[in-house]
Amino acid sequence: MSNLESEIGSKLYEFAEKLWPFNRSLTGNGVRQTLCAIKEVIPGLRLHEVPSGEKAFDWIVPKEWNVVDAYLITPNGNKICDFKMNNLHLVGYSIPTRVNLRLEDLQKHLHSLPDQKDAIPYITSYYEPRWGFCLSQNERDQLIPGIYEVHIDVELVDGSLTYGEILLPGQVEKEILLSTYVCHPMMANNELSGIVVTTYLAKWLSEIDKYYSYRIVFLPETIGSIVYISKNLATLKKNIVAGYVLTCIGDERTYSFLPSRLGDTLGDRMAMHVMKYIEPNYKRYRWLDRGSDERQYCSPKIDLPVASIMRTKYGEFPEYHTSLDRLDTVVTATGLAGGYNLVKKVLLGIENNYYPESLILCEPQMGKRGLYATLSQKGSAQIHRKLLNVLSYCDGNSSLLEISDILEIPIWEAFDLIELLFGHQLVEKLRK
Amino acid sequence: MSNLESEIGSKLYEFAEKLWPFNRSLTGNGVRQTLCAIKEVIPGLRLHEVPSGEKAFDWIVPKEWNVVDAYLITPNGNKICDFKMNNLHLVGYSIPTRVNLRLEDLQKHLHSLPDQKDAIPYITSYYEPRWGFCLSQNERDQLIPGIYEVHIDVELVDGSLTYGEILLPGQVEKEILLSTYVCHPMMANNELSGIVVTTYLAKWLSEIDKYYSYRIVFLPETIGSIVYISKNLATLKKNIVAGYVLTCIGDERTYSFLPSRLGDTLGDRMAMHVMKYIEPNYKRYRWLDRGSDERQYCSPKIDLPVASIMRTKYGEFPEYHTSLDRLDTVVTATGLAGGYNLVKKVLLGIENNYYPESLILCEPQMGKRGLYATLSQKGSAQIHRKLLNVLSYCDGNSSLLEISDILEIPIWEAFDLIELLFGHQLVEKLRK
Amino acid sequence: MSNLESEIGSKLYEFAEKLWPFNRSLTGNGVRQTLCAIKEVIPGLRLHEVPSGEKAFDWIVPKEWNVVDAYLITPNGNKICDFKMNNLHLVGYSIPTRVNLRLEDLQKHLHSLPDQKDAIPYITSYYEPRWGFCLSQNERDQLIPGIYEVHIDVELVDGSLTYGEILLPGQVEKEILLSTYVCHPMMANNELSGIVVTTYLAKWLSEIDKYYSYRIVFLPETIGSIVYISKNLATLKKNIVAGYVLTCIGDERTYSFLPSRLGDTLGDRMAMHVMKYIEPNYKRYRWLDRGSDERQYCSPKIDLPVASIMRTKYGEFPEYHTSLDRLDTVVTATGLAGGYNLVKKVLLGIENNYYPESLILCEPQMGKRGLYATLSQKGSAQIHRKLLNVLSYCDGNSSLLEISDILEIPIWEAFDLIELLFGHQLVEKLRK
Repeated sequence: MSNLESEIGSKLYEFAEKLWPFNRSLTGNGVRQTLCAIKEVIPGLRLHEVPSGEKAFDWIVPKEWNVVDAYLITPNGNKICDFKMNNLHLVGYSIPTRVNLRLEDLQKHLHSLPDQKDAIPYITSYYEPRWGFCLSQNERDQLIPGIYEVHIDVELVDGSLTYGEILLPGQVEKEILLSTYVCHPMMANNELSGIVVTTYLAKWLSEIDKYYSYRIVFLPETIGSIVYISKNLATLKKNIVAGYVLTCIGDERTYSFLPSRLGDTLGDRMAMHVMKYIEPNYKRYRWLDRGSDERQYCSPKIDLPVASIMRTKYGEFPEYHTSLDRLDTVVTATGLAGGYNLVKKVLLGIENNYYPESLILCEPQMGKRGLYATLSQKGSAQIHRKLLNVLSYCDGNSSLLEISDILEIPIWEAFDLIELLFGHQLVEKLRK
Repeated sequence: MSNLESEIGSKLYEFAEKLWPFNRSLTGNGVRQTLCAIKEVIPGLRLHEVPSGEKAFDWIVPKEWNVVDAYLITPNGNKICDFKMNNLHLVGYSIPTRVNLRLEDLQKHLHSLPDQKDAIPYITSYYEPRWGFCLSQNERDQLIPGIYEVHIDVELVDGSLTYGEILLPGQVEKEILLSTYVCHPMMANNELSGIVVTTYLAKWLSEIDKYYSYRIVFLPETIGSIVYISKNLATLKKNIVAGYVLTCIGDERTYSFLPSRLGDTLGDRMAMHVMKYIEPNYKRYRWLDRGSDERQYCSPKIDLPVASIMRTKYGEFPEYHTSLDRLDTVVTATGLAGGYNLVKKVLLGIENNYYPESLILCEPQMGKRGLYATLSQKGSAQIHRKLLNVLSYCDGNSSLLEISDILEIPIWEAFDLIELLFGHQLVEKLRK
Repeated sequence: MSNLESEIGSKLYEFAEKLWPFNRSLTGNGVRQTLCAIKEVIPGLRLHEVPSGEKAFDWIVPKEWNVVDAYLITPNGNKICDFKMNNLHLVGYSIPTRVNLRLEDLQKHLHSLPDQKDAIPYITSYYEPRWGFCLSQNERDQLIPGIYEVHIDVELVDGSLTYGEILLPGQVEKEILLSTYVCHPMMANNELSGIVVTTYLAKWLSEIDKYYSYRIVFLPETIGSIVYISKNLATLKKNIVAGYVLTCIGDERTYSFLPSRLGDTLGDRMAMHVMKYIEPNYKRYRWLDRGSDERQYCSPKIDLPVASIMRTKYGEFPEYHTSLDRLDTVVTATGLAGGYNLVKKVLLGIENNYYPESLILCEPQMGKRGLYATLSQKGSAQIHRKLLNVLSYCDGNSSLLEISDILEIPIWEAFDLIELLFGHQLVEKLRK
């Protein structure tokens, strides 16, 4: 890692540590705490509250869920499955419960993973009233027979669903969308990583001159994006030219891409172009492998050009949806910085994806502009050659992305060449 | 074979046995006997008679040919090459002849196969007046010198060419064409198989509700399809959306496909889709390998979307065009049932090739419809996943065939999924 | 080689020998001598003079350069680097110089190739005033210390740039362009070969009936084509349907193709089709490998469909741009005849690239036209089959090139088949 990478890595990691303990879910104060912490980094963030019971297409905003306390008392009087120790212990959206049960009756409310004996699984039951506790198989195996006290002190009442949104205006109304989700409790790659990377990308974008406008949203998954789309469909369809769901973007294992449903949008092509140069062996999924909010953004008649950029994809790493998806082991400062820098390169690629047009007919005389050594030398000839190669495609109809792909160079290299030609008044930088 | 397959196999085989002895040729009573037997299975069949001498594009309907008797008498007084024993013995369209010849002069009228010594070859001379006999090389080798009596008692007179046609109306005028040929005498795969399979497909189609109309024709090859096209060109061009020549469709060796000239019509794509799932190693020919009536249906400016579905293609099996292409060895009940069921699946594919359109925006809430186990279980998750995959392409612009190919499932599986979505009012089934 | 090939090979070679000694450069009398010699073969050639200082897009026509004499006198009084012995000895566009220098000061004006010790390199300095001599490394290594007399008696004055052009009218205004360059001194493959092959192609084209018109130009490279385009842009854009730069087309090593920038024009496809049959292992370059006047013809907004046909490409053979690129070793009569015949076949391909349309519906009855043996024989069946295959694509929308590619036969074979069908009034030969 360069110093700059190390610096952004540290910031992302510290921010993740700060957000770690909040009890994120579909709704509730954990979401609000998370969004308020994000707002400290990007003050322009606006929080929206959507009341329980409001309809959004086929869906209804659920009741708001807040946990006061939750635990079990064993026959020996020990407190176990303590929500305050790890918020994964309580099944998400568990209903308020105060009951004493024999172990054999309690068992059907317990969830563990026989194959990962030291992992607490992540379980929710948003739309079916239930209660339950999650614990490691090791801990479960040691439960002794007898009567257990179940304490689930939660509020499940009409309230609201909360999401955050920031619009960063550029030169044009056309927008790039970034979307991540704020409903996952104490897990690091899936999903604190998306939140912290997206927050700092928003911060960076708020500080630079931009051609495109940027729409950045922090939502609970599925119901959140559905609610958001239902409230903003016309604007989204009018403005969005590319978008990415950012998720599972903080580990160091690989880089992964999942295309939009249509699969050949500008956002798809730019992300794959950049990833090819960042990590030639990046993992490329199909639309059929999808599983996050691109399911909504790309659904028929919504049809937004939204792909997913990830490091190791949800469902594809052993710690997925368990307490093993930790901030200190799975997600690292280096992993987060890698994800952040990848997306930055992709966004810069879209920002600078001109359709350059030559300002003169036939080749220019490079020599009189000092762009061609009059006595040929090795390095100069190569740059001169690349300049003429780029220029030979500056017909006003080829994007810099297309030109880069033909020349088999990363778009940032092509951009440097275009700037050089632009500086010598040899090309215009058109937009389409 | 399932019981159902075994049942249809037996019916097809029995029908083939019934048609076996008729002396089919370009014209004549053998064709009429064949068509009358077909009419017993599908009473709606209409027989058409086209008089000798009538013009059809570049061609003229030939004289009608009927055989009374034909044989040779050897110097020893034995009757050989007896047409009544096997109608392959007489060269098709042999002219009337009564002459005595020495063996050496007779030889140039005899046809046998040195490489298949026990096979009687199938030879015709439709457009050049000739006479001749076909016999096995073994029999020929035993002919003794001396005088032979040639008896060819045939009528070759102005009469008519006969073909059969049935139109089975569906909900729309758009038609699917099935075409097979009735001009080949005692040979089983090429060509009793096409006749019997097409007859029973017509019977099945006459008994079901159909979206498309069906046009099913039983013709002599080449001249028959040319005559038919010349009489029906405007209607065919207006209505036919897909069509198949059915030939060599009764053996058990493989399945084969030969595309239409354009090669990428609905009929081509559907047949290849279905065949891929029925027999992954099916044989795929090119247009340049063609050899039956698709030559006419697909010719320039006729341009009908007609492909060929076969089991082992004409010219590609050793018994082809000889007496060895037998009903008891080459063609079997199992082979016929396989061909019949393949075409049925192809036709059902076209019938059900909707352009489904989602009726709601974003993903539906599957749980409240019982389409999503609230506690996930293995099998249910898979169906739920497939349902959402199909639904994600229900944009009203993608056919079920295209969706099936993307999902890599057979179209009949996609159809079941669409019916389930349709039953829950989640999709409309559009047509295009 | 056939006799015919041997004959054209000898003519080409003799013509090359005649042009060999002229001191070709960007401008000057060596170019005029070359063009006058070409005019003796093709009297219609017009010489154009463009005055020094005239602007052409980004460029200015340079002064005219003519050499009276140039050599060095060694301390021993020997004459070396004598321009009259080999015109490569003098750096192209050397300025007039008469000076005495010590060897150590002379060295920076000398050019040799340490890796090719017996080769005189080819060096020019068109746009930067310089002088210099080129010699073999072997000769240079033997230079003794002392004072050298430098004699460079040249004229570098306002004059003109000279190019040759001939227009050969065909039935239509649409044109095929052939372009080669006349600025290289004593080197054979690069570039006497292009001049002699193009001259004799022009001669051949002037003697035959043509559908297309032909525009054939002999120019100094780069500045010549830029000047020519600047003077003729509207006409070129209106008329040119295909074009080729002919260069390095006289050795025997291989055949090479370099596409136009767009890469899929008629000229590209026809050249690749023909080359595939002439030499299956021909070398196919990319646009990025370009290096001759296609750089100008294909530049953005000029966009002419001009590809390059070569034997061994400039830069790709060891003798390139040295005195070793000789007429007696590198370039041969056989090599020149091969290049000439290849281009001829390409041009005939374009000339005969009809869109044939069948004049009858369905297949014709081949038998009544004698195109189908009534008793089948091996050879006749193959031709009959090919005839029907070609005919099956005669829909008026498929070019003979496309049909040939589908049938996997060379276009000249398809042309013979079309002529046979045309002779029987079975097809029309349409143009598009």
